[in-house]
Amino acid sequence: MKLRTQAAPDHLHNPVAIVGAGPAGLMLSHLLHLQGVESVVLEKQSRSEVESTVRAGILEQGTIDLLRKTGVGERLDREAEIDEGISVSIAGDSHRIDFAKYTGKQVAVYPQHEVLIDLIAQRLSDDGEIWFNTEVTAIDDHETDNPKVHYQAADGTSGVLSADFVIGADGSKSLTRKLITGAGGLRMKHEYPFAWFGIMVNAPQTAPELIYATHPAGFALISTRSEHVQRYYLQCDPEDTPDMWSDERIWEQLHLRADSDAVTVSEGEITDKAVLCFRSAVTDPMQRGRLFIAGDAAHTVPPTGAKCLNLAMADICALAPRLAHAVKKSDTSALDDYSKLALPRVWKTQHFSSWMSSMLHSVPGADQMSTQFQTNRRLAELSTVVTTDAGRQLLAQQYVGWDFPSIDSF
Amino acid sequence: MKLRTQAAPDHLHNPVAIVGAGPAGLMLSHLLHLQGVESVVLEKQSRSEVESTVRAGILEQGTIDLLRKTGVGERLDREAEIDEGISVSIAGDSHRIDFAKYTGKQVAVYPQHEVLIDLIAQRLSDDGEIWFNTEVTAIDDHETDNPKVHYQAADGTSGVLSADFVIGADGSKSLTRKLITGAGGLRMKHEYPFAWFGIMVNAPQTAPELIYATHPAGFALISTRSEHVQRYYLQCDPEDTPDMWSDERIWEQLHLRADSDAVTVSEGEITDKAVLCFRSAVTDPMQRGRLFIAGDAAHTVPPTGAKCLNLAMADICALAPRLAHAVKKSDTSALDDYSKLALPRVWKTQHFSSWMSSMLHSVPGADQMSTQFQTNRRLAELSTVVTTDAGRQLLAQQYVGWDFPSIDSF
Ligand SMILES: Cc1cc2nc3c(=O)[nH]c(=O)nc-3n(C[C@H](O)[C@H](O)[C@H](O)COP(=O)(O)OP(=O)(O)OC[C@H]3O[C@@H](n4cnc5c(N)ncnc54)[C@H](O)[C@@H]3O)c2cc1C
Ligand SMILES: Cc1cc2nc3c(=O)[nH]c(=O)nc-3n(C[C@H](O)[C@H](O)[C@H](O)COP(=O)(O)OP(=O)(O)OC[C@H]3O[C@@H](n4cnc5c(N)ncnc54)[C@H](O)[C@@H]3O)c2cc1C
Repeated sequence: MKLRTQAAPDHLHNPVAIVGAGPAGLMLSHLLHLQGVESVVLEKQSRSEVESTVRAGILEQGTIDLLRKTGVGERLDREAEIDEGISVSIAGDSHRIDFAKYTGKQVAVYPQHEVLIDLIAQRLSDDGEIWFNTEVTAIDDHETDNPKVHYQAADGTSGVLSADFVIGADGSKSLTRKLITGAGGLRMKHEYPFAWFGIMVNAPQTAPELIYATHPAGFALISTRSEHVQRYYLQCDPEDTPDMWSDERIWEQLHLRADSDAVTVSEGEITDKAVLCFRSAVTDPMQRGRLFIAGDAAHTVPPTGAKCLNLAMADICALAPRLAHAVKKSDTSALDDYSKLALPRVWKTQHFSSWMSSMLHSVPGADQMSTQFQTNRRLAELSTVVTTDAGRQLLAQQYVGWDFPSIDSF
Repeated sequence: MKLRTQAAPDHLHNPVAIVGAGPAGLMLSHLLHLQGVESVVLEKQSRSEVESTVRAGILEQGTIDLLRKTGVGERLDREAEIDEGISVSIAGDSHRIDFAKYTGKQVAVYPQHEVLIDLIAQRLSDDGEIWFNTEVTAIDDHETDNPKVHYQAADGTSGVLSADFVIGADGSKSLTRKLITGAGGLRMKHEYPFAWFGIMVNAPQTAPELIYATHPAGFALISTRSEHVQRYYLQCDPEDTPDMWSDERIWEQLHLRADSDAVTVSEGEITDKAVLCFRSAVTDPMQRGRLFIAGDAAHTVPPTGAKCLNLAMADICALAPRLAHAVKKSDTSALDDYSKLALPRVWKTQHFSSWMSSMLHSVPGADQMSTQFQTNRRLAELSTVVTTDAGRQLLAQQYVGWDFPSIDSF
């Protein structure tokens, strides 16, 4: 077993160097391996940090299929809760969106760090190289045939890795992205006037499926992690800090926003409080020379609709077969199209996430009559969506996700 | 025949006084008559002005049915063009939205002034009272059982009409609305960063169905009035004046924005140029005491999606049977619900019109990266809508219009 938790000696050469052991980086190294191409993943955090950080939790149909098809879906199939719909609650009035009926597809409730645990275990048993505690500090020569990756390990040692291709899967604060945007690549952005305050709670499930609740007081999301652990979110001000949210205020607001005739939000010990910021950004192109970026490194979508992790996986499905071909056949022509292939899905996902966000959040404005106009308009939109078959289907199709790019051919 | 083109003597008493002989006012007097209730319509313009002013041109299914069912659809059935779909052209790439397939319904191309000509003719032959050239200057005592309408005729004579009920159907610059908003009623508003420059052209039809075209240079709408008369619109700046649009610029922009593989915009003599402003506004409630407002007096929607006239007709369908009941049975209880009944459709229509507007218009912003974000997001939305059955159906259902309130019962 070649797994390392420290950096290797200098000047190793590898076909593919991957920066970041998040969902994008790990899935890429896994898919490349299945196509007979080896890689090194460099990750600045420790393995235990990676395997324990609470982040996304909803897998769309394409991600479920991908995990299953590539042999890392066994624990998911055993442990994940499968949802065939969501509830949209409008001031306590609940409407179900039936995914099974409108799409024949499902989503899985399976936390991101569980996916990472499964992928890391699989890479280990396949003798994959993951260098934990190894921070990439710079990339050089990515516009030549022989890019270099400079790294620094937690123990102070540093080195340079040479590779045929470098993949930036280093998340939203990406260092690799700057090599694209600093050289004329675009970074298109949108800010939202709200954020989410997220908590983890030791409590029984409130409801079998997720509840997206909108209320004059603001949005709330009731989601679950397991039978005994729940994840709740409350719309808050982007400037809010966790200390502004006492337990009392949290429960009062959750009940106010999300309780309905059918449901009372279950209470319990709060084990984690964090503010999740809302931001949209897209990098175009997602490549430069022999550097390719994927996942949060390339784009950020707001969390409403739970797309981030799934979008990272879809990027990888577009990238992996083209990259494997490039390595095996020394022919990079298919890689030239990577951005053009990935970006339409990125934009559709940006639209879906921003649509869900704007439809469900209340936005106070300076002018009261214009605020009330927008509130009534968005409630009319939401009503049109949840009370018509066409509206429910449009929401359901986007929620379960578009088909993934094929990993077998291109 | 009691039709007058001048004001009548003072202190006449009538069950219903209607301010404005637009689609709302004339249809109301027609429906009341069919239910055995007489009214007086006061209109500041001359009959020929009312019958010749070019305004809206698309009738949704509910309006078509209403005209037919109440005996004023004969010329419509003979002369109107019936459309079973529209085209959405995205930078020259054309997508058809098939109304027949998704809704089983249609729309009619039949100019507003033709509807008015038909309604006026019908009211005349039914001995209806329409006082043209008569401007209403004030309303009094509408919070009592005996409201008064003060008017001034073009020939200088003035008078006061007493009525059981007063209906404000006096258009977007409504005087009657102020009696509601001035007494605590809300006026909720939204402004748009664009307007339409509209022209009438003597030219053959460009295409059998309407074309909603979006292009980086802006929106264009290719619509028709008859075989030889076309109505085209170009997105423009709200501050633009007609003299900023030379014929040369008009044709250049129309071809740039709306030509496609299938279609070339037909040219001809331009007979009318006007800037149409974009504005959304809703008054809530739409009543106070014995005063009720309907149509543009109560609300304005932007023209994208062609809802204004149809929404005015739907208001009247909610109002007419309740008003007839109140007059005949001296029981106003059903009228209390008028606003509550009419407003949900108003808000859904505001949403549809603002959704169509925002999806099809390009909006330059101060920050270039945020403008490009919004442009790509909206093109992804448009692509999702025009390439999925659910999206096309959602658009089609709203375009042909929701069912009208019943005029027979409540
Ligand atoms: C705090 C947080 C909470 C979130 N919660 C939710 C949620 O509740 N719901 C939801 O839908 N989505 C959530 N998301 C989003 C979702 O988790 C991400 O979209 C997803 O993780 C993207 O995967 P990725 O592989 O592209 O990036 P990441 O998962 O961010 O992986 C990037 C990896 O690269 C490593 N790295 C970064 N820089 C370097 C470097 N220079 N050298 C070496 N390694 C480096 C990082 O340590 C990290 O492990 C959350 C994100 C964050 C940050
Ligand atoms: C210039 C213009 C162009 C338009 N073009 C389009 C278009 O291309 N497409 C589209 O979909 N919609 C268009 N519309 C909107 C559409 O025509 C209106 O929504 C529709 O006319 C509403 O009908 P209404 O009966 O409520 O009001 P109106 O048709 O405005 O009727 C109100 C009537 O009341 C009269 N009136 C006003 N005040 C008084 C008073 N104090 N005393 C007596 N009479 C009074 C007016 O003269 C008028 O005849 C346009 C509107 C305007 C103003």
